[in-house]
Amino acid sequence: MTYPTAIGHSDRDSISLLGHDLSGELIGQVGFGELAFWLVAQRRPGAGEVRVFEAVLVALADHGLTPSAIAARLTLTGAPESVQGAVAAGLLGGGSRFLGVTEDCGRFLAETIAAAGEPPTDDDGWDALATEAVTRQRASGRPVPGLGHPVHKQGDPRTPVIIAIAEQAGTRGPHLRLFEAIGRTHPGVIGRTLPLNGAGVCGAALADLGFPPDTLRGFALLARTAGLLGHLAEEQRRPIGAAIYDHVDRAADYQP
Amino acid sequence: MTYPTAIGHSDRDSISLLGHDLSGELIGQVGFGELAFWLVAQRRPGAGEVRVFEAVLVALADHGLTPSAIAARLTLTGAPESVQGAVAAGLLGGGSRFLGVTEDCGRFLAETIAAAGEPPTDDDGWDALATEAVTRQRASGRPVPGLGHPVHKQGDPRTPVIIAIAEQAGTRGPHLRLFEAIGRTHPGVIGRTLPLNGAGVCGAALADLGFPPDTLRGFALLARTAGLLGHLAEEQRRPIGAAIYDHVDRAADYQP
Amino acid sequence: MTYPTAIGHSDRDSISLLGHDLSGELIGQVGFGELAFWLVAQRRPGAGEVRVFEAVLVALADHGLTPSAIAARLTLTGAPESVQGAVAAGLLGGGSRFLGVTEDCGRFLAETIAAAGEPPTDDDGWDALATEAVTRQRASGRPVPGLGHPVHKQGDPRTPVIIAIAEQAGTRGPHLRLFEAIGRTHPGVIGRTLPLNGAGVCGAALADLGFPPDTLRGFALLARTAGLLGHLAEEQRRPIGAAIYDHVDRAADYQP
Amino acid sequence: MTYPTAIGHSDRDSISLLGHDLSGELIGQVGFGELAFWLVAQRRPGAGEVRVFEAVLVALADHGLTPSAIAARLTLTGAPESVQGAVAAGLLGGGSRFLGVTEDCGRFLAETIAAAGEPPTDDDGWDALATEAVTRQRASGRPVPGLGHPVHKQGDPRTPVIIAIAEQAGTRGPHLRLFEAIGRTHPGVIGRTLPLNGAGVCGAALADLGFPPDTLRGFALLARTAGLLGHLAEEQRRPIGAAIYDHVDRAADYQP
Repeated sequence: MTYPTAIGHSDRDSISLLGHDLSGELIGQVGFGELAFWLVAQRRPGAGEVRVFEAVLVALADHGLTPSAIAARLTLTGAPESVQGAVAAGLLGGGSRFLGVTEDCGRFLAETIAAAGEPPTDDDGWDALATEAVTRQRASGRPVPGLGHPVHKQGDPRTPVIIAIAEQAGTRGPHLRLFEAIGRTHPGVIGRTLPLNGAGVCGAALADLGFPPDTLRGFALLARTAGLLGHLAEEQRRPIGAAIYDHVDRAADYQP
Repeated sequence: MTYPTAIGHSDRDSISLLGHDLSGELIGQVGFGELAFWLVAQRRPGAGEVRVFEAVLVALADHGLTPSAIAARLTLTGAPESVQGAVAAGLLGGGSRFLGVTEDCGRFLAETIAAAGEPPTDDDGWDALATEAVTRQRASGRPVPGLGHPVHKQGDPRTPVIIAIAEQAGTRGPHLRLFEAIGRTHPGVIGRTLPLNGAGVCGAALADLGFPPDTLRGFALLARTAGLLGHLAEEQRRPIGAAIYDHVDRAADYQP
Repeated sequence: MTYPTAIGHSDRDSISLLGHDLSGELIGQVGFGELAFWLVAQRRPGAGEVRVFEAVLVALADHGLTPSAIAARLTLTGAPESVQGAVAAGLLGGGSRFLGVTEDCGRFLAETIAAAGEPPTDDDGWDALATEAVTRQRASGRPVPGLGHPVHKQGDPRTPVIIAIAEQAGTRGPHLRLFEAIGRTHPGVIGRTLPLNGAGVCGAALADLGFPPDTLRGFALLARTAGLLGHLAEEQRRPIGAAIYDHVDRAADYQP
Repeated sequence: MTYPTAIGHSDRDSISLLGHDLSGELIGQVGFGELAFWLVAQRRPGAGEVRVFEAVLVALADHGLTPSAIAARLTLTGAPESVQGAVAAGLLGGGSRFLGVTEDCGRFLAETIAAAGEPPTDDDGWDALATEAVTRQRASGRPVPGLGHPVHKQGDPRTPVIIAIAEQAGTRGPHLRLFEAIGRTHPGVIGRTLPLNGAGVCGAALADLGFPPDTLRGFALLARTAGLLGHLAEEQRRPIGAAIYDHVDRAADYQP
């Protein structure tokens, strides 16, 4: 019985990661975002890819006092000695409603492209594919992943920035093109204009970097971990968890 | 009732993070590691600080098939639809025995320095302080955090690399100096030579960047999240969780 | 803003739970399983219902060194000070592949019954409904929840016992009847005989107690928490986590 | 390499738990609380012990909209498909500040009794031991575990009920006696009267059942799992998570 792994290994004198000597070839010579990309993709990214990848991580790192950030802070209130528990509690809220959108959007785009056979070669072709995909999705009663946002109703400010960075870096590929086409064509199908949201564009940009849909939620979690560390450090300095608890407890309307 | 926060905020048209417009000033203009530093420290790091910080994250990202990585993979075996659950399970093993060392070492060094009043000005001074601290710690029956490693008994290869990078970046300060002095002087106190381990040197290097001890475990968790994403992507491609389960189940010796 | 809740409330002098005084009316007067039923169903169960409910919890409490139990033990290895983290890690493996079956089976049965309109009145009627449901499920390429077991290929010993207890207690209703009919009729549809598994029969029995499908996974988690406490107490007395880690580490086949 | 375990085992035809055939000897014949006791203690409890044990679980099951319950509900808001994640998030708040009290109190009592050598034989003896223990604890600057409550300042209503049940069941032993003595004597040491709290009396009662301190937090987690299931079922029926998020977001005072 052996367990194959390409991640890493260590023995008495060395630590190896991804086929390289950690101390001699990686520490100080590879960025942290670059390493995260490499660990998942099993290939070292180019500079343009790193730029897009880190832009996505920065875009997804935080969104204020979200349910996830509040849950992490309340967990620290009860178990201040276990920062790992508070981070874990925050990440556990990264499911289908919030961080899952990144994955769902990447999967929707990838499946649409795969089903199309030969990809379109111009914007008209992408628009036709997008129209068809949105129409089919609506007919099945499901939402179009990446479309709409509860707060940024007039446009998510992250979306054009991520597209522009991917364009500059030369990684704007079929997933982003299809996503943009959905932005152009969906009003004609659904009768109103919704924004292309930030979680969705991040899924499209990551898919254009070659990541399969199953891996996308993980990157949203990595990004959010940084945001959670910010919230937890602030909670240690100037706690609000107890005040939130106090508010909820006082405003509870007990109806047995 | 209000809840003060300096992390971020969003409204219909904008997302603000750390007092900056996320889309216009941060995405594509700040690195992911840089942002993580900034979120916790509440100040933007300089280039040298980013270099040391990312070196630490790379050093702590993975250590092969650790208990944490195995737990994450086994969790994915049972709940493949919930990547956030698998990441959380992996992080929950980042407690006192493993990732906690980074925090414990940073705290031990910070408390020793704080208790010393005026810090030493030369190596002899640091050696004297280190000898005193190790002697006191041993007398109380507790281990010296950052000293010793179960595998790298002849020296942890990460340690000199982190120190060299901090030196080049100009951030090698009192915590690293005291840690190095512990490396020089402990054999005279405890009668044998132990390696300065990688988790410990990372704690010292982070403390020299100005982070309080309470925040250090969080960075080890952030680093490890990247490693876990590598393990989970590999588990999705080529699973070993079921084989590990099968081995343990067959090798179980049921003694009711 | 108020938050309605029927669970409980406390003030300076009293603690109320489910509309009753915790100290004066519940502690010592209601069993723990009974209380769990009551908390979820928002009605106090009868004695027969409690008997079936506790039988289900006992049936689902443990299944040896499962991935979930191993993950919990490995988490304790790394963070022995955080029992809550180890329990949480164990529960996080209770997803679609293992504990989810209880929920999936209950939902499949409930939806089949709801779609049938008037429920059957005799075994022939249930057999016809079961044949139709299994046929439809197979046609859609999905497995029939509750059918088949990787180990207990000749029959899961828990299944007849749960059915018998429900019969004695007077709670054997449409979900169990349909589940039994699936057991009788599926060989004619799929061409081979599979066991009705324990997780599935538990889902059916709980559904017959009136619980909606969304609540069923929770009971499997409650049951498994007891099993995990057993494993973690044993891990504290006589640890195997480090040995499992050691085995996996030695058997790792590093293929960068 | 074998992994010894006394918990359970299964093969093709049978499932064994604690040396008994699960289907033939346990399901329907042992209560759920009884089984949880047995799994941890590795001995089957008597009827009186079960009564005290379940009384403790009922006492600890819920305390309204606590930080733990709120965190679980907020996690379900983000990841409604992953009930195990929401339960895990709720349990992760069961650390030193809340559920840890049960363990801390049991440990404090056990260590005090162990250090005393021969246990006292009358109330005067217990009072002397309690006075000494409270005095020593205060001198070291640490709180006395189990003493004081933020809400129930005039007495925790659970405390006398648990003591009475233990007395009736014949399990009122040294830990409860010492705990009661602390209640009688601490005003003379610390100059004011604090209540003996519910988490503390539960720790004392469990310690009198023979459980070592390391296992006590686990039972508090098991009890709280039932409460969390109640909260999560209510959140599925009538959610408040989104309203809590909305309140916090609106009341956020962004001070970059």
